[in-house]
Amino acid sequence: MGATLAELARLVHGKVRGQTTASIDGANSLDRAGPRDIAFFTSAKYRDQLAATKAAAVILREPDATHFTGNLLIVDNPSLAFARICAYLHPEPTRKAGIDASAVVSAGAAIDASAVVEATAVIGPGTRVAEDVWIGPGCVIGRNVSIGRGTRLMARVVVQEGCLIGRNCLVQPGAVIGGDGFGFARDGERWIKQPQLGRVVVGDDVEIGANSTIDRGTLGDTVIGTGVKLDNLVHIAHNVRIGEHTAVAACVGIAGSTVIGKRCTIAGQAGIIEHLDIADDVHITADSLITSSITQAGVYSSSLKAQPVAEWRRNAARIGQLDEIAKRLRSLEQQIERMPKE
Amino acid sequence: MGATLAELARLVHGKVRGQTTASIDGANSLDRAGPRDIAFFTSAKYRDQLAATKAAAVILREPDATHFTGNLLIVDNPSLAFARICAYLHPEPTRKAGIDASAVVSAGAAIDASAVVEATAVIGPGTRVAEDVWIGPGCVIGRNVSIGRGTRLMARVVVQEGCLIGRNCLVQPGAVIGGDGFGFARDGERWIKQPQLGRVVVGDDVEIGANSTIDRGTLGDTVIGTGVKLDNLVHIAHNVRIGEHTAVAACVGIAGSTVIGKRCTIAGQAGIIEHLDIADDVHITADSLITSSITQAGVYSSSLKAQPVAEWRRNAARIGQLDEIAKRLRSLEQQIERMPKE
Amino acid sequence: MGATLAELARLVHGKVRGQTTASIDGANSLDRAGPRDIAFFTSAKYRDQLAATKAAAVILREPDATHFTGNLLIVDNPSLAFARICAYLHPEPTRKAGIDASAVVSAGAAIDASAVVEATAVIGPGTRVAEDVWIGPGCVIGRNVSIGRGTRLMARVVVQEGCLIGRNCLVQPGAVIGGDGFGFARDGERWIKQPQLGRVVVGDDVEIGANSTIDRGTLGDTVIGTGVKLDNLVHIAHNVRIGEHTAVAACVGIAGSTVIGKRCTIAGQAGIIEHLDIADDVHITADSLITSSITQAGVYSSSLKAQPVAEWRRNAARIGQLDEIAKRLRSLEQQIERMPKE
Repeated sequence: MGATLAELARLVHGKVRGQTTASIDGANSLDRAGPRDIAFFTSAKYRDQLAATKAAAVILREPDATHFTGNLLIVDNPSLAFARICAYLHPEPTRKAGIDASAVVSAGAAIDASAVVEATAVIGPGTRVAEDVWIGPGCVIGRNVSIGRGTRLMARVVVQEGCLIGRNCLVQPGAVIGGDGFGFARDGERWIKQPQLGRVVVGDDVEIGANSTIDRGTLGDTVIGTGVKLDNLVHIAHNVRIGEHTAVAACVGIAGSTVIGKRCTIAGQAGIIEHLDIADDVHITADSLITSSITQAGVYSSSLKAQPVAEWRRNAARIGQLDEIAKRLRSLEQQIERMPKE
Repeated sequence: MGATLAELARLVHGKVRGQTTASIDGANSLDRAGPRDIAFFTSAKYRDQLAATKAAAVILREPDATHFTGNLLIVDNPSLAFARICAYLHPEPTRKAGIDASAVVSAGAAIDASAVVEATAVIGPGTRVAEDVWIGPGCVIGRNVSIGRGTRLMARVVVQEGCLIGRNCLVQPGAVIGGDGFGFARDGERWIKQPQLGRVVVGDDVEIGANSTIDRGTLGDTVIGTGVKLDNLVHIAHNVRIGEHTAVAACVGIAGSTVIGKRCTIAGQAGIIEHLDIADDVHITADSLITSSITQAGVYSSSLKAQPVAEWRRNAARIGQLDEIAKRLRSLEQQIERMPKE
Repeated sequence: MGATLAELARLVHGKVRGQTTASIDGANSLDRAGPRDIAFFTSAKYRDQLAATKAAAVILREPDATHFTGNLLIVDNPSLAFARICAYLHPEPTRKAGIDASAVVSAGAAIDASAVVEATAVIGPGTRVAEDVWIGPGCVIGRNVSIGRGTRLMARVVVQEGCLIGRNCLVQPGAVIGGDGFGFARDGERWIKQPQLGRVVVGDDVEIGANSTIDRGTLGDTVIGTGVKLDNLVHIAHNVRIGEHTAVAACVGIAGSTVIGKRCTIAGQAGIIEHLDIADDVHITADSLITSSITQAGVYSSSLKAQPVAEWRRNAARIGQLDEIAKRLRSLEQQIERMPKE
């Protein structure tokens, strides 16, 4: 699907400098773009690539326009305009509505006529699949699930009994929504299972990454707010609530009953322990561990920084002596205080 | 399924205070319980919820009975009683025994007549599925596997060739049991695969979380003891052995040939390196790294605590100078020692 | 499949000491080997096991030959010889070529006549499956994928649209290749999806672990070099490039656009943030976090070491005061400097 530069400018409410009739078929990075591609520029780090690009046009901010003599599409937010133009030039493939002959759909399920159900998908009784939903190959949807309009489950996604998925969500392959929370009571040395009776409730416009897991609530629900984005291999425990438009990067684990605010970002491999409250607009750096509630917006970290191993080992050994080091320091301070002053 | 409070008291060997004939249909938390629900109370933190609850009855310990004027079910272990009552009031759905027409069961597999095999499951030759086993949709069971009585594989579980699963286990969706261990020999710069010839042997009453992976042994077996509970996205490497009733939270990784004792708890995102021995009754805090064997029961930690990022960065930079700091401290101590005493 | 010791010696270019006609049926560890098994010895730690072994023969290095009086197979690299002998004595089961009746193969897919496609696998249009490929049960292969000669996908592997898998690869169950990268542009508080238009390109002889995820590139490709080995639950983000023969252990996360060199090893739970360059022959220890590029070969670490929790808490609290501690130390040094010298 091609367009002229003027058409793309209208799409993103931008301003053209140069040939409005330039033909554009694709979108690519500055260094990979060909003469019918559009590219974008946001960082001075790529000024060399900008100078050398073969792109038909470049999307950038007004103040950067002086750095390029070719066709320009000037916008306030080049990344956003580029994302929209990519989506326009490379639309999702469309699928013919209907249920593949190899899918196993319960008689008691209600599948909208506009929905696509691909090969070997399994759908349980009482489940409702709304308009324009696309259920990919090998997905397993339990009973009494609801999948909202326009949502796509890629492949091999599991949604267990009773869970609700909103509209226009995208669930990457292998994700598991509604597995049991990890809850047990002790009986002597044995663990007795606490039945997990809640659901997972996912808002609209949510993306869930490949092989991520979201457990159902123990009694109430686990809630993923509208606009939340979860990357791959993320673990969301029972009764967690994640506020709208929060983004969680890969390999993060959030423990049971923790409540995360809106518009937070949680970087890769970070962990948050159970029963905490994290305020809105909190940002957590990679691999950090959050062990107490956060009431103020801001950036929080316990990220370490690797060193060459010999050096690191010497320093790490001292971590194990830190309390003693601090006490020796205090003792020195006291000794010096008691010394005669000149 | 409803009951009177007296019936529930008999179930959990508890004592009623109040109306023994109170009708109870469901179980819920103090704040969510309605007038036909039972709830439980264990922590002074929830005393306000206790005062305000609409529950038909509350399960609690004798000493807490003075804090509530409504119907009580008094027990020694309220969490345990609540778990049992939840299971009684909300029993697992039952399924009609039999093999779904879309399942692909090898002629050489022995499936007990009481077992359920759901849609699109695949079962290999030589595999034995015992009484009351429930194999969910999309599961793939290899050849010569054995699944013990009463075990349930939820959906899309993989059990590879030759593995043994005990009785009354519960395996959450997407778990992979019996993938190859990560073993290679070097041949110059290339890695040559060490064939993984062992099995995974899982005891009775084990729960395995969604998308967790348990690798087969290289030569001997990987062994998961009876009563072990594994959360989601847990990695258990080849030849690991986990003792009975140990619980492992989400995103934990345990490396090859490590042996974990009985009744341990390993919190989320912790890691244990290869070839270690961890004693019985060891508890490891979230995100800790265990790099040497532990011979004494107790709690072990290397968990960090996040700070506002500016503060953390200043402190973290000092970690990289710690050995030097310690040496400067020692030097000061020596200088002060050599100073004339008053 | 059995062999004489002489035959095995020819296979691995080794030298026999003892009975060349000894019959060998299996391979096992020193402590588990029976009188028709071969075992191997590499470390003085196992000298007691060597003395007590019942193995028909032991593979070891020349200098270790004096420690054993039984049959020997002397080689330069016992682990490598053992891996090769295991593969010879325990060959992979062979499968009859062909497509299972329950598989759903698009009319537009080209499946070589020598390939195996097992039960319930789904293969999209335009996809090419080469000679001797083995696609296990429940795999989902999208459209326009290419799977190279001799590659095996175990069970429930997903390969999304347009990805290329090389020759002789082995993909463990549940892995997802070609899910969308985690890329969004901000639009006020909302995240707008950046379409993920690139592919995953996997070289030859690559192993990918169970439930690992490799995202497709945003514009260019995500590239896994020939000979790379990835363990379970590994996350490889969009546009990462991993050099040949690098090995990545379980639970590692590598963030977007990072480039890893050749022959690196990355231990379990390590993390590498986005847009870094890691040189060839870099080794990263367990749970370390890499936050800046590494230009020199060597070992890098930020691994901590757990302590008993009371001790650790005292030390960890001091980490949060480290900058202040360092400043107090500097102040003491200055005070002492200013003191009158004897």
